[in-house]
Amino acid sequence: MSAPDIPEIVVRRLPLYLRALRVMASEGRPVTSSRELGDRLHMSAAQIRKDLSHFGEFGTAGRGYDVEPLAEELERILNVDRAWPVALIGAGALGRAILHYEGLQERGFRIAAVFDRDLDKIGRHLGRLRIFDVAALPELAGEMGLEIGIVAVPASAAQSVADALARSGIRAILNYTSAILHVPDGVRVYDIDPVAGLQSLTYYL
Amino acid sequence: MSAPDIPEIVVRRLPLYLRALRVMASEGRPVTSSRELGDRLHMSAAQIRKDLSHFGEFGTAGRGYDVEPLAEELERILNVDRAWPVALIGAGALGRAILHYEGLQERGFRIAAVFDRDLDKIGRHLGRLRIFDVAALPELAGEMGLEIGIVAVPASAAQSVADALARSGIRAILNYTSAILHVPDGVRVYDIDPVAGLQSLTYYL
Repeated sequence: MSAPDIPEIVVRRLPLYLRALRVMASEGRPVTSSRELGDRLHMSAAQIRKDLSHFGEFGTAGRGYDVEPLAEELERILNVDRAWPVALIGAGALGRAILHYEGLQERGFRIAAVFDRDLDKIGRHLGRLRIFDVAALPELAGEMGLEIGIVAVPASAAQSVADALARSGIRAILNYTSAILHVPDGVRVYDIDPVAGLQSLTYYL
Repeated sequence: MSAPDIPEIVVRRLPLYLRALRVMASEGRPVTSSRELGDRLHMSAAQIRKDLSHFGEFGTAGRGYDVEPLAEELERILNVDRAWPVALIGAGALGRAILHYEGLQERGFRIAAVFDRDLDKIGRHLGRLRIFDVAALPELAGEMGLEIGIVAVPASAAQSVADALARSGIRAILNYTSAILHVPDGVRVYDIDPVAGLQSLTYYL
């Protein structure tokens, strides 16, 4: 039920709401309010109500939101009520760390294949996964139904990897490099940028 | 010149503007506009003008923004016109990847010390840095002037590391784990959450 007219900034906040709701659910809390969610997330209650109103009527005046049903609805909206097979490009230290990141698999993202261009790595294993030649990406993406790519290569190689992902029909890219990727229409990039995070922290120091 | 009444969501967007401006500067572009910045960042021009207006008068009607002066002003606002010594906690695969991340050092963040609690790692080296016992953090944070901590340990150990960082007088934490950290007032956390990124991508799939 993706609605193309929802601002991207709103879409990017939904995972934060989902995460807070899942914590509340794990604490056994059946009901919450936009104010309580806002306190946890350092956002205004009005912002949260406005964001959620894009997607329908949630919650009841005076009672608030039912935690578990709202979490499930957000999972449906975000299309994470299923498991996604992910291609990891880059079998170096960062790739290894991503493969072992606690929380990817349990939150619906399964790294199904690892790729590298280094001939010394191709054919070896990263964890339990064999490392494929990145040249095989277009073929294997189709065969394995890969729909998401994680770019964990040196910044200088990131654009060529993004090009290969787009050629392989992959429309969602999580970019761990400091490169700004150019992609065709219909492909989306989310940048994991630790420097942006650090800079928004030093503002307060 | 930190202004405490600026919404955090605005502060978090400033690094994006700075990054885009730095790319433009490297392309040799002297002038830009809120519309052009917005196109690059997939945001509205009005949003950018509004965000920047919190910090003063930038740009001229009809001419736009001077790229280099605006970038420098943002660096001043974000306090990144200096180098910050950073403590990295966790000398595993993720710590190694962070230490070698291109862009931290060149954008003003110098990992000055690495800590771990694993007796097999303490005293050895990660890159050119000796690995210290995390128990020495309070003492060394003062001695070395560490002001920022990066948490790259297993999620189960993250809260105790956050507690140690707060006790050490560190007020800015970049959290790479999936744990939701509780910190005292005056300490800020920025979460690097790849799952939130992936979820905001699957929305569109």
